[in-house]
Amino acid sequence: MPVRVAVDAMGGDHAPGVVVEGVLDAIAEAGDRLTVLLVGREAEVRAELDRIGGAEGEHLRVVDAPQAIEMGESPTVALKAKPQSSIHLGIGAVKQGRADAFASAGNTGAVMAAALFGLGRLPGVLRPALPGYLPTPTGTCVLLDVGANVEVRPEHLVQFAQMGAVFGAAFLGKDDVSVGLVNVGEEPGKGTDTVKEAHHTLRELGERGALRFVGNVEGRDILQHGADVCVCDGFVGNVVLKLAESVATILPAMVKTEIGRQDLDGPSAQTVGGVLKGMLAPFDYQAFGGVPMLGIDGTVVIGHGGSSARACKQMVLSTAGLVEQNLTARIARALHDSSEATS
Amino acid sequence: MPVRVAVDAMGGDHAPGVVVEGVLDAIAEAGDRLTVLLVGREAEVRAELDRIGGAEGEHLRVVDAPQAIEMGESPTVALKAKPQSSIHLGIGAVKQGRADAFASAGNTGAVMAAALFGLGRLPGVLRPALPGYLPTPTGTCVLLDVGANVEVRPEHLVQFAQMGAVFGAAFLGKDDVSVGLVNVGEEPGKGTDTVKEAHHTLRELGERGALRFVGNVEGRDILQHGADVCVCDGFVGNVVLKLAESVATILPAMVKTEIGRQDLDGPSAQTVGGVLKGMLAPFDYQAFGGVPMLGIDGTVVIGHGGSSARACKQMVLSTAGLVEQNLTARIARALHDSSEATS
Repeated sequence: MPVRVAVDAMGGDHAPGVVVEGVLDAIAEAGDRLTVLLVGREAEVRAELDRIGGAEGEHLRVVDAPQAIEMGESPTVALKAKPQSSIHLGIGAVKQGRADAFASAGNTGAVMAAALFGLGRLPGVLRPALPGYLPTPTGTCVLLDVGANVEVRPEHLVQFAQMGAVFGAAFLGKDDVSVGLVNVGEEPGKGTDTVKEAHHTLRELGERGALRFVGNVEGRDILQHGADVCVCDGFVGNVVLKLAESVATILPAMVKTEIGRQDLDGPSAQTVGGVLKGMLAPFDYQAFGGVPMLGIDGTVVIGHGGSSARACKQMVLSTAGLVEQNLTARIARALHDSSEATS
Repeated sequence: MPVRVAVDAMGGDHAPGVVVEGVLDAIAEAGDRLTVLLVGREAEVRAELDRIGGAEGEHLRVVDAPQAIEMGESPTVALKAKPQSSIHLGIGAVKQGRADAFASAGNTGAVMAAALFGLGRLPGVLRPALPGYLPTPTGTCVLLDVGANVEVRPEHLVQFAQMGAVFGAAFLGKDDVSVGLVNVGEEPGKGTDTVKEAHHTLRELGERGALRFVGNVEGRDILQHGADVCVCDGFVGNVVLKLAESVATILPAMVKTEIGRQDLDGPSAQTVGGVLKGMLAPFDYQAFGGVPMLGIDGTVVIGHGGSSARACKQMVLSTAGLVEQNLTARIARALHDSSEATS
């Protein structure tokens, strides 16, 4: 049985062109593993298919969605005003069982709101969370929440840790991921009351073997892979993720300035540029293409607004991979097991 | 009149050796601008002076403090248990008017607590704040708070902005520093309730011309110099500062790995290393040596625990510079003017 992914053809800064292209490439690569419902303004989507030389068939079907939510629109306003948007109808396809997952590089807030409203939360989930990932010298670490929840209670952080551990295991391909709590010091008594209480519960879960909790991770530890999964509220996570991502933007400028200051010759500058390029390769967000909303009763993946065709292709393939790995069911089980143990 | 700086001879991982050395170097450089009270265990301090070949004189006097607070000690416990510590007596010298400022590379929490208790806050200051600084491609930006206040109210953030603007002007040598609020999006409606309310007040102050408020700065903007002064709570600031500082630690490892992967020859590797070294120069925390606690009724500068002799020298010179610039009086005036305007 192929995985059926509904894809938001209108999502992202360069939609629908790059989305259609990415979907065709994903289908070509996945072969019989994948079918796609391409949800968007039918005429526009078909025009793009014609342009690229793709066509509907066994692995691809176009679903008309007469409305599209723009990147800058207010999610709450747009969701009411545009019930026939590609985001609504894509989520609807998952709800009705016509698709196994939904993927969009569109308006993150609108996708999150539509998913929450249309699919709801998994049993026991207090708040869905959005993970991000960061390259480290020894691999990749997962950070969550990165923006869905700017204000949290301790029990939210604890659930982020539990959901993050399941996602981290799937994403990093590791069984026994380490989980750390982002904090201002190593000692358990550090941080806000919320973080201290979360620390206490996470340590108990760790002692019970429900989680490999490694304690607090400080700002300096995050990029040095202090933990496979770093847990924080959505405010801290959003700032940290964007700051870390910006390093990949700033480095080339700093290298260029320094090359000029040292007045290096062409071949030397080229050597330096080559090393820089190799170093920055892991920062390429296009490699994974998107992140799942954790805690939703269904698989919903959100891609980068600036996604290219390659990023869209990876988003679709990653989404299919998460379905194959039963991510949602595994999160549900992890939360259920943990609540059984505490009750 | 020379500036009289009381220096914690026992503060830091390598005290008293590097502190004594740094103080002697600072005096040699500052000439008649500076006198130092070196506060610490007299026998140990004198032994270091002998070792280095320094001596008491017109510009240097040793003050005996029989106790020393260690780096790892709990500030609250240590402050009660060790009333004769170098931190207490150094702050005491400022309080009694025998010194114009106190500088320590020791236990940050203990220095902050002793300063708050011994010198108190400037009139109207709700919470003192600790700034940090980060190199950007176009200069340096100031970030505050970086750890003194992990939980804040909107009015605290507003005062951090006001105090940060005064410090930023002195530190960056600019008249009209821009001030931004660290947030998860550009729009005023983003973030927590606390941040939203602070944004509102800061915008009003900006419209009145009391502050050059440039709005929200996102994580990606901080290192790209989105503002000269970036304001946030001490939790976010601490994580951001340590994360950004860690880049300087991680880059050499990443460069080395990439040089190995590309199997570069010796001269090429050397070229790359040279560029890296030049790029990392601005990340050198020893260049300034320490940061002042803003909002304290007196000048108190905190240095890095790992300070070298050069960092200690810079800490002492920077402290004298802040006294010469009347930082404390300027902060008091800025807060007073602002409260006059609102009342």
